[in-house]
Amino acid sequence: MSQKLKVLLIGSGGIGTVTAYALETGGLAEVTAILRSNYAVVEKNGFTIDSVDHGYIQSWRPSHTRNTIPNKEEKTFDYIILTTKNTPDIPPSLPSLIVPAVTPSHTSIILIQNGINIEHPFRERFPTNPIISGVSFTSATEVEPGFIRHDDRDRVRLGPFPYSRNRNSGNGELSERATTATQTFITAYNSPNNHNIVDVQHDPDVPATRWRKLIYNASFNPISAILRMDITRMRVYEHVIDELVKPAMREAIAVAGALGVRVVNGDEDEEGVIEQAVRCDPPEAFFRPSMCQDVEKGNYMEIENIVGEPLREGERLGVSTPTLRTIYAILKGLQVKVKEERGLVKPEFDEKSRYAGKSESMA
Amino acid sequence: MSQKLKVLLIGSGGIGTVTAYALETGGLAEVTAILRSNYAVVEKNGFTIDSVDHGYIQSWRPSHTRNTIPNKEEKTFDYIILTTKNTPDIPPSLPSLIVPAVTPSHTSIILIQNGINIEHPFRERFPTNPIISGVSFTSATEVEPGFIRHDDRDRVRLGPFPYSRNRNSGNGELSERATTATQTFITAYNSPNNHNIVDVQHDPDVPATRWRKLIYNASFNPISAILRMDITRMRVYEHVIDELVKPAMREAIAVAGALGVRVVNGDEDEEGVIEQAVRCDPPEAFFRPSMCQDVEKGNYMEIENIVGEPLREGERLGVSTPTLRTIYAILKGLQVKVKEERGLVKPEFDEKSRYAGKSESMA
Repeated sequence: MSQKLKVLLIGSGGIGTVTAYALETGGLAEVTAILRSNYAVVEKNGFTIDSVDHGYIQSWRPSHTRNTIPNKEEKTFDYIILTTKNTPDIPPSLPSLIVPAVTPSHTSIILIQNGINIEHPFRERFPTNPIISGVSFTSATEVEPGFIRHDDRDRVRLGPFPYSRNRNSGNGELSERATTATQTFITAYNSPNNHNIVDVQHDPDVPATRWRKLIYNASFNPISAILRMDITRMRVYEHVIDELVKPAMREAIAVAGALGVRVVNGDEDEEGVIEQAVRCDPPEAFFRPSMCQDVEKGNYMEIENIVGEPLREGERLGVSTPTLRTIYAILKGLQVKVKEERGLVKPEFDEKSRYAGKSESMA
Repeated sequence: MSQKLKVLLIGSGGIGTVTAYALETGGLAEVTAILRSNYAVVEKNGFTIDSVDHGYIQSWRPSHTRNTIPNKEEKTFDYIILTTKNTPDIPPSLPSLIVPAVTPSHTSIILIQNGINIEHPFRERFPTNPIISGVSFTSATEVEPGFIRHDDRDRVRLGPFPYSRNRNSGNGELSERATTATQTFITAYNSPNNHNIVDVQHDPDVPATRWRKLIYNASFNPISAILRMDITRMRVYEHVIDELVKPAMREAIAVAGALGVRVVNGDEDEEGVIEQAVRCDPPEAFFRPSMCQDVEKGNYMEIENIVGEPLREGERLGVSTPTLRTIYAILKGLQVKVKEERGLVKPEFDEKSRYAGKSESMA
């Protein structure tokens, strides 16, 4: 690579900043990071990164920082990486947000986000651009603006979309470009400067990796948000695991199975995978998953791709998902309260409202 | 009646105080009210009652007030009325609480409480005492200690337990005494002094009345508590009704049907009853049902008889109750947080804990 890859990063929180740092220190990419809530702080002081991989870094800045999306006429981006939350129920949509920066037929769009069916809106909106789907197992959080705590090794799995399992979509040339773009990006990420520090790999079966992570995310995450309860308490008060978490996990696994996605590896069985997922957090941590943190802070939660899409896939395929269905409806009720606090909706009946008016008494 | 009925009232909040007032003003009963949180205030100032039936009353006291349960050796009670919340998952149990005041074979126990299967623990504990089951449609709340706001007419339906539908339990003499005790109590409540003000009637089918009220209570009540959302918002944000409230109502009606309880009257159909229940609160009130108020105040919620028992009856009878099942498990999770705040449980693993320990990573 004679010239550095031009990378636009949308979402410079925990995961995004760790990604940007590895790409920049690798020396093969130049990152333009879009900052929002932390823009002023980072402009002034740079990032502080307390990293399990890279040590304690102060006053670090990517090559470029901005607080607006750049235009493709200003700079041609080879890659746009999205590491934001995915809340398609809250406008604006991510595809419409990045439109100005996308060079058709050139820019590769990398989605490092949780949940399933996240790629479809990008495939529709950018039919000539390679799309790369990624799952991060990195644990990194922005604990205060500009301060990133990076606890768990930078570990990312990436694969071109559409996935090989449905590659016969008649678009072989674009798929080939996506495959090449994935490899080029992985090479830059795992550059000799970073080797043996970051662990970024091509994943031949991204759907299985996504669903495997989803087993945890579609169960612990929403249930912790609804109960506002950390995972250790859920495990101590066993009924929460028995009557909510495990049923939701079983339903998610059943939907994956109906989609032909195998979440068990080798000689694992499903209940073994569930038992492992139940205990994957250190119990002494009293850890609150992201959805729980979001609801407690009055932030939007990522409900559509983590619970809504698995549920809809299940309904489409005739898989019973009664726990996920009720959990999803509750999450939407919690989300509409946040929308109301932020002025997106108002608690007022209109002429189309079906439940306005008072009935006679029940007695 | 030459002598006034001796009535012990357990639970002198909104409903209980309105009941005590009507009994005392009727002139045919003498009430001993057990006060707890409001004892000091009422001792000093009496009750203030702002009543749709009785007007604005200040400095009112029942014949006797106490803050401990009296002993049957001190006084023989003809009736004990329970108008407390029913939380059998929180010790002490109500039957054990009233034991000292119950004269075997004599005292009638009147349960004016919501939910189903509330009578069974009393039937077991007091096998020789008449049990009367009541449903109140009165709206009365203690808005501050000793201050009762009574908005909706004092309307109570009462019937002897066991109900006529399962009267053939081989205990005809006790049933006859319960029937007589019900009639005597109704006569005292509807005394000439109160006539046309209070509306207290014998109910030939208490189970149907209970279940009809439960349609609302097993749906709006828990869902409002989980979402911390008033009923008006639930109706404006229609999905809460469509995806949570109505499914829960349909499941409750199905369980009632399997028990042989007919919740529809005359030519009503079930969906009509559901539509009526959805709209039974005035939409301008932004009303928060009791469970929602309880969870917001950090109080225990009445979950066992309002959601748990309908669910268990459904499971016993093979009725599908997926919404109630998930809602119930969530309520128990919210309740355990209150138990923890009050020191009843601790978030600690013990040697029998099934979900202690950490597994290998999920990836």
